Formats: sequence, structure tokens, C-alpha cells
Amino acid sequence: MRTEPFSYQVPLDGGIPPVWDNRTVRTLSSMRGQYLDQAAYDAMLAQGDTLLYEVYEIIRPAVAGELLQGVTVLHPGKVGDEYFMTKGHFHAVLETGEVYLCLRGSGMIVMETPEGDWNVQEFRPGNAVYILPRWAHRTVNVSASDDLVFFFAYPGNAGHDYGTIEQRGFRKLVVERDGKPTIIDNPRWKSS
Amino acid sequence: MRTEPFSYQVPLDGGIPPVWDNRTVRTLSSMRGQYLDQAAYDAMLAQGDTLLYEVYEIIRPAVAGELLQGVTVLHPGKVGDEYFMTKGHFHAVLETGEVYLCLRGSGMIVMETPEGDWNVQEFRPGNAVYILPRWAHRTVNVSASDDLVFFFAYPGNAGHDYGTIEQRGFRKLVVERDGKPTIIDNPRWKSS
Repeated sequence: MRTEPFSYQVPLDGGIPPVWDNRTVRTLSSMRGQYLDQAAYDAMLAQGDTLLYEVYEIIRPAVAGELLQGVTVLHPGKVGDEYFMTKGHFHAVLETGEVYLCLRGSGMIVMETPEGDWNVQEFRPGNAVYILPRWAHRTVNVSASDDLVFFFAYPGNAGHDYGTIEQRGFRKLVVERDGKPTIIDNPRWKSS
Repeated sequence: MRTEPFSYQVPLDGGIPPVWDNRTVRTLSSMRGQYLDQAAYDAMLAQGDTLLYEVYEIIRPAVAGELLQGVTVLHPGKVGDEYFMTKGHFHAVLETGEVYLCLRGSGMIVMETPEGDWNVQEFRPGNAVYILPRWAHRTVNVSASDDLVFFFAYPGNAGHDYGTIEQRGFRKLVVERDGKPTIIDNPRWKSS
């Protein structure tokens, strides 16, 4: 772990960072149960475990006062008519926020609280989105052809709660209707 | 104060953000005693209270878990042969870091700890600099003509200690020597 301030590259055109500490890759198989159209999911997975997104992280101690930071690259595509998306999560320490800065592409950020509030923000280059403490967050790539790329930073002690979303899903989904991204209720959302 | 996630613009080419919550302006008179060449400082101030930099902030609660964020625009210029720079500060809560992402221009970030370590990072578009917890930080614009513009984010509870730097200065200064930015010892630095 570095003990002095340091610099790293965040290509402002949304290219891949040339240097990072950790690269996490999420493929279709890690999203089982998350897409609405299960038949489309199964059919796509039978063709191969498609790469959905990559997270390039700078590693810091997981303590309050530090900032975890990096770049996410979410590839374009759909499962049925539902766009490729990140798993989405609450922070394990619920009272921690996160800031995203879009560098490339076209997307939406889907958010909700444990109390049932929801919010969707459009996400294009130059949009900074502040995800308030308590809000679960998922990123959706609504482009037909381009990667969605963004810089992120969040408190070192935040942690990740993926399980709640894996079990319940998000209240809202983003699907293509008449060729346009459309927010719909998630018919499979579970209240507990 | 917003109670839902929100979006704001961070022009990736280093332009001025079109919307912000708070704009702080620092002029030459706020930097009394910080520049090495006091005669050059007095002469410049006699000509007018030159605008040095502007900070465009998004306001959030000053508590741990929140992130304070915004854009700084540091104009080009020199006082004697010392480049325009920010006041620089420690965080009042020393164990809090900060991340900067350069969008435009050419600069340096000068940093030091209470224990006497120092570090200088070059700062150009696409450079993210992580200022570790405990490190005081000052930004210097080494361009002859262009603004230095960067996005920043830091923990909501960090606070600012400007007084220590106002009294002691930084251990290192960035001045122009033979037409190039050069790091020198600060002969006026005070150990207490």
C-alpha cells in the first residue's frame, strides 16, 4: 500500500486506465436472477459467459477518511430488452455516499432507499451524479454500441451489500421500448 | 439541502460549471505572507486585487459518509517568479484524504505532512492525484497562459485548517527558473 500521495491516469475520453491496482470483471453468469427475461438470459448464457463490465480500482485501506476510487467500463448490450447493467448494491455502511463522473457513453443510474424512495439520473459525459448516503445504486448502459465509462470515488469504510439487491432486485428497471430507454416497475421486485 | 440523488455538470474540457451551490473566490490580498517575493507581492497588489482562483462547490452536510465535491479554477500568473497557487491547507480532521482529477492546464500539487515528509505531483489533464490522509495540499498553476481546472472530492467531515499553512508556509515552493517550473526549499518556512 502506498504511503505517499500518488498520481494515476483517468483517460478523460473514457479509455481504459493504463495502470490500476485491481481489476474486477463481471460476466453474465454473475447476474443470475437479475434480468427480467429469464429465457433470454438463459439463451444468451448458453452462447457464452459474456463480459458485462470491468472495474479498475485504486486500492486504499478500508477505513473512514480514505477514498476508494477508480474507473468502471460497462459494455453495451441487452438481455431481452433490458440493457446491460451493473449488479448494483447498497453500501454496507449505509450512511456513506458516492460520486460518479461520466467520461463516455450514455446511461442511467438507478437508485433506491430501503424506505422505498427511488430515483433515476441520466448519465452522459460531464454529468457528475452524487449518490446520497442510504441509496443503493446500479448503472445501466443505454447505448446500442458504445461503452459507458465513469470515474468513481467513495468513502473507504463504505463496504458493499450486494445480497439485498440479489434477493430483492431494484424497484425499477430500464428497458428498451419503441427503441428508447424506458423506466418500468420491476414486476419481480420483492418487498422482503 | 437536496434529499435525493442529483446530477450536475463538470465540463470535461475544463470549462466553468454552469450550476453550483457555492462559489468561493480568492484574490491576491488573501495570500498575504504566502509568496516568497514580498516586494513583488506588494507591487502587484498595489495594481489591484488580482483574482487568483475560484472554487465551485456542491454543498453537502459536513459529516463523515458524505462527500464534498466541486471544481477549482486556478488562473495563470506569477508573483515575482512564483506561480499562482491556492492557499493550501491541512484537513481539520487530519485522517481524511482527497482526490483531484485534472481536466485542463498544467500544474503541480505540493504536499507535506506534519512530520516533515513532502511530495510534489505533476498535474495535467487525465491525472488523478490521491492526497493521502494527513497530507496538506496546495495546487500550483505552472502554465503561462491557461487555467488549471480540476474536479475534487473529499469526506464531508474533513474541515479545513488554513492557519497552520498561513503561519508556517509549505516546506517547498514552485518557482520559474530558466523558464521551467522548479521545486525549491522555502527559506521562510517555520518549524513551529
